[in-house]
Amino acid sequence: MAKKKKPIIDVDIHERATYYDLVPYLDNPWAKYITDADWTQEKHLPYPIMGIDGLDRADAKSPDGRPAGNSLSFLQEQLLDGVGHEYGILTSAMDPSPSSMHGFYGMAEALAPALNDYEIENWLDKDDRLYGSVHIAAQNPQAAVREIERVGDHPKMVQILLPIDRTPWGDPYYHPIFEAAERHNLMIAMHHNEPPSYYGNYPRYFVEWHSVMPNTHMVQISSMIFNGVFEKYPNLKLMMLEAGFIYAPALMRKMDTQYKYLRHEVPWITEMPSETMKKHVKFSTQPVDELSKEEFEQFVELMGSDEMVCFSTDYPHWDYDSPHNALPKLDKDLEDKVFAENARSFYPKLQAVGGKVPL
Amino acid sequence: MAKKKKPIIDVDIHERATYYDLVPYLDNPWAKYITDADWTQEKHLPYPIMGIDGLDRADAKSPDGRPAGNSLSFLQEQLLDGVGHEYGILTSAMDPSPSSMHGFYGMAEALAPALNDYEIENWLDKDDRLYGSVHIAAQNPQAAVREIERVGDHPKMVQILLPIDRTPWGDPYYHPIFEAAERHNLMIAMHHNEPPSYYGNYPRYFVEWHSVMPNTHMVQISSMIFNGVFEKYPNLKLMMLEAGFIYAPALMRKMDTQYKYLRHEVPWITEMPSETMKKHVKFSTQPVDELSKEEFEQFVELMGSDEMVCFSTDYPHWDYDSPHNALPKLDKDLEDKVFAENARSFYPKLQAVGGKVPL
Repeated sequence: MAKKKKPIIDVDIHERATYYDLVPYLDNPWAKYITDADWTQEKHLPYPIMGIDGLDRADAKSPDGRPAGNSLSFLQEQLLDGVGHEYGILTSAMDPSPSSMHGFYGMAEALAPALNDYEIENWLDKDDRLYGSVHIAAQNPQAAVREIERVGDHPKMVQILLPIDRTPWGDPYYHPIFEAAERHNLMIAMHHNEPPSYYGNYPRYFVEWHSVMPNTHMVQISSMIFNGVFEKYPNLKLMMLEAGFIYAPALMRKMDTQYKYLRHEVPWITEMPSETMKKHVKFSTQPVDELSKEEFEQFVELMGSDEMVCFSTDYPHWDYDSPHNALPKLDKDLEDKVFAENARSFYPKLQAVGGKVPL
Repeated sequence: MAKKKKPIIDVDIHERATYYDLVPYLDNPWAKYITDADWTQEKHLPYPIMGIDGLDRADAKSPDGRPAGNSLSFLQEQLLDGVGHEYGILTSAMDPSPSSMHGFYGMAEALAPALNDYEIENWLDKDDRLYGSVHIAAQNPQAAVREIERVGDHPKMVQILLPIDRTPWGDPYYHPIFEAAERHNLMIAMHHNEPPSYYGNYPRYFVEWHSVMPNTHMVQISSMIFNGVFEKYPNLKLMMLEAGFIYAPALMRKMDTQYKYLRHEVPWITEMPSETMKKHVKFSTQPVDELSKEEFEQFVELMGSDEMVCFSTDYPHWDYDSPHNALPKLDKDLEDKVFAENARSFYPKLQAVGGKVPL
């Protein structure tokens, strides 16, 4: 594929770590659980998996048969070189991630450092274009903070990853994580990873889950804002991954209107929620909704800022978005912002290392 | 207040029935539970109630001290005459409504007919402008269908009311209700009535609940559409009450995009979800988000139809919207549609009786 001139920063790439990949980074008993006990804890989905290769692009399996996203050289060939990335932010495809393990907390606390070490050694240290996410066992904020202290200053660690599932992250119990994030100049990225439970019910169909995906993101934004996280940690920023951005204009207005009615309930809030969102929250595009150029611009206009949307591919998942044809052709200024500049300003560390830019 | 010339059809008025009001319409043991056992089942909210008169407008309490919405004559004076309604659709403020009782199903099945009889005798028969909702105990679809058969043909019963709380109503278990609705030319109205449970957690603040209110509505629309309700019952229509309308454009696009990816999962769907929504779903305005005229028009344009939005006051609740100042001044054609014509076409029975139009 011809390399395009436009800079592309991709804020959501799922490099895959299998549990076996992490064995060299684990002490016992954790390593032993994986090898001797054949420990797996795959997340149960209540649906058949939809793609012809499960949740992955069938063509993203590497030539040597490893699962999609597990081979750096094939990811370089197919994505970084093939598509033409300036930078890519790794968000991992280990399922469940340590923070989304609803049981076995001790294992979660062991897996997080192993996953970080694996990521640094096998991905971040081997390609200047790749930046990483700090994985933590957020269930235990003390352990999480220890891990942030350990790897948070790595020059290529740009954010802390939190799953969007059962926990409303604005809860003060988790604020030490945000305090540590701010101390280490790390952003917060959030990514859903299980179907939303609606009063204990799963949606009956996968298509329902994906249609209401933004709901869980809305709950998290609302939780972060009304619990005063951005007042307490004014340098903290939030990247919402993989629910698109077109739900934001309605959420911004709804929060503003309700805040005007009910501000006496949350007296620590010092500005309109939509203003907080403009300063602190960004949205990745994938899975991008089908929008004409005019519609794309209308939704951005209704957000009141063209600096909130960041391109992502979600590689190597089944619903991957190509930067070359998933979005409508935008005007140069907006295109530059969406495809690179909004992410560049969000992640100050991106500029600190200097990548092997393949343009 | 001067009466305006514009016709106003208000699709969400909460007339209040206390449990004691229903005693004359109940047999024993149900009447006895209320009188002798002092039976109440108020819904527990995890928040202090925000208005100075709880959830109601303080000035909506009637002069004789009855709770807001409990006196027809005061509702006529303050709302129907005072504001200038052509028609108002009653949706009740009995809390919990029969369909939202999560226990004591026998009582729910007894309360529903009592509430309907009370509504007909005390409200619908006494003011030509008022139309009503059939209350059912939807937990038991057989009992629900019996009640729809009993009162569904009343000329002033225009819809069946379903609560938005724990049940995703698209589930086939409830389809007999929709079949009965269609048989009696009744629409379906849905109204939330408890905070959304997010994986078992309530939002920590009332302002969070109200900010993510549209989420539960989105779940219900998605559930109704992907479970094929509108394919099975092509004359059925859905009125979504009290979460506004500006969340709809994003939902329509998200559902369309996901349907294109995943249509093999729901082969009974025969058209794009956004098209189904345009034909079958309407949204009440209250609590209207603060929108300029241009923004109001932009959101309507992004819905692809100006026939989906219907004005509502939510009288007598604390966040009541006046038809005379809550919305921006719209162009005549859109104003007519929002304030009356969209509701008029949605509810064919409205024209059958002939109201005492106070214009």
